[in-house]
Amino acid sequence: MHVFYQPDNKKHFLETDEAHHCIKVLRARPGDELVVTDGRGGVSKGTIVSINPKRVEYQVRDFYQVPLPDYRIHMAICPTRKAERNEWMVEKMTELGVHKIQFVISEHTHRETMKRVLNPERLIRVALSAMKQSQQFHLPEFAYFLNLDTYLGQVEAKERYIAYVASEDIPRHLIQQLSPVRPVEILIGPEGDFSTAEIEAAQAADFKPVSLGDTRLRTETAAVVACHSAVLAQIQ
Amino acid sequence: MHVFYQPDNKKHFLETDEAHHCIKVLRARPGDELVVTDGRGGVSKGTIVSINPKRVEYQVRDFYQVPLPDYRIHMAICPTRKAERNEWMVEKMTELGVHKIQFVISEHTHRETMKRVLNPERLIRVALSAMKQSQQFHLPEFAYFLNLDTYLGQVEAKERYIAYVASEDIPRHLIQQLSPVRPVEILIGPEGDFSTAEIEAAQAADFKPVSLGDTRLRTETAAVVACHSAVLAQIQ
Repeated sequence: MHVFYQPDNKKHFLETDEAHHCIKVLRARPGDELVVTDGRGGVSKGTIVSINPKRVEYQVRDFYQVPLPDYRIHMAICPTRKAERNEWMVEKMTELGVHKIQFVISEHTHRETMKRVLNPERLIRVALSAMKQSQQFHLPEFAYFLNLDTYLGQVEAKERYIAYVASEDIPRHLIQQLSPVRPVEILIGPEGDFSTAEIEAAQAADFKPVSLGDTRLRTETAAVVACHSAVLAQIQ
Repeated sequence: MHVFYQPDNKKHFLETDEAHHCIKVLRARPGDELVVTDGRGGVSKGTIVSINPKRVEYQVRDFYQVPLPDYRIHMAICPTRKAERNEWMVEKMTELGVHKIQFVISEHTHRETMKRVLNPERLIRVALSAMKQSQQFHLPEFAYFLNLDTYLGQVEAKERYIAYVASEDIPRHLIQQLSPVRPVEILIGPEGDFSTAEIEAAQAADFKPVSLGDTRLRTETAAVVACHSAVLAQIQ
């Protein structure tokens, strides 16, 4: 099953990249069945009625709403300096079922670098492709360019964890601390780690330190395995 | 701490890429301390005695052997058609602490494609870099180009799992089936999935079907989260 994307579930046609993929890659024909999502849980099942070079029109036979799960996974990350590592991280967290991805500016992040390594339009395309590929119907929410202090003041989830490298006492592993079926917020440190003041500020905002294992993980690996741990916490 | 690599722990010098990184990137000087691993658990701590453009000589003050853990994680994967996805998968599994990576040829894998998308020299470099980056001292073992039947006849670990997409009954999640502190062998299906005959052959060879979650994961994502689940099974 291939899933297509049309953000407006009142519009029954595919355009641009989606139409191109449908026509050129999958070589769809009038009469073919298709599945279209609006990225907000809405799923349309229908039949292609006409194809022209830039547009695929379809008739919807069935529309239903896939609910979000009871839990929510919110990841907050100080991005890495390489665009492709940030894109990879977004792709993998989306495949796993992340609900929100928040990029945070810390002392060791250059704001200018962030603008260069995080392209919101490109990240949405990566997430869109990963959502369809993994046969999900909800696009993760994105938020950009918040200073750590502002971020700490806006967190809603009561269950909050922070992963960083420099730690005298090694905390318990995230998987040993997570509760099932609750919104969870996980904050991942930057290359070069958080400053001591930042770690203190996060702990004052009720973020509990967690370990992500015995090996030292790159930022994007830490984000993906933390997200995966949060998924696993729901099934045990 | 930066870790360097010298496969022969009797030789007390760095050459080629390692020397270049030490001299040009880290701007090391005689008298600087350094840590060198042989990739088989051996760790040399010492002091740089001389630097010339292509060679860094050091004196070893302390040599010790880091043991492997009691468990072993062996991943067997039908590679993806994109070289960079295979490289990414090797990097991330190495960061997590995989012990062996075996590439397997299935019905839906072209042998020619495999040679194009798997460059053993390049993958060793990726693993080497990930090992040092994550501050580990054991390089994963690599094995290439085994047909699935041959592979199934050679597996040593008694605990064996197979992850694939097409399944009538959804099996229990890998994390619910794994035992701690045992060698484990996890086989990951290709893009396009295993054939029915292949799944039957694996099950006849005592591979238990496992789920890796509710979302459909790409091959390389499945490999990384399965490896991460095996790591988590050791700490719970």
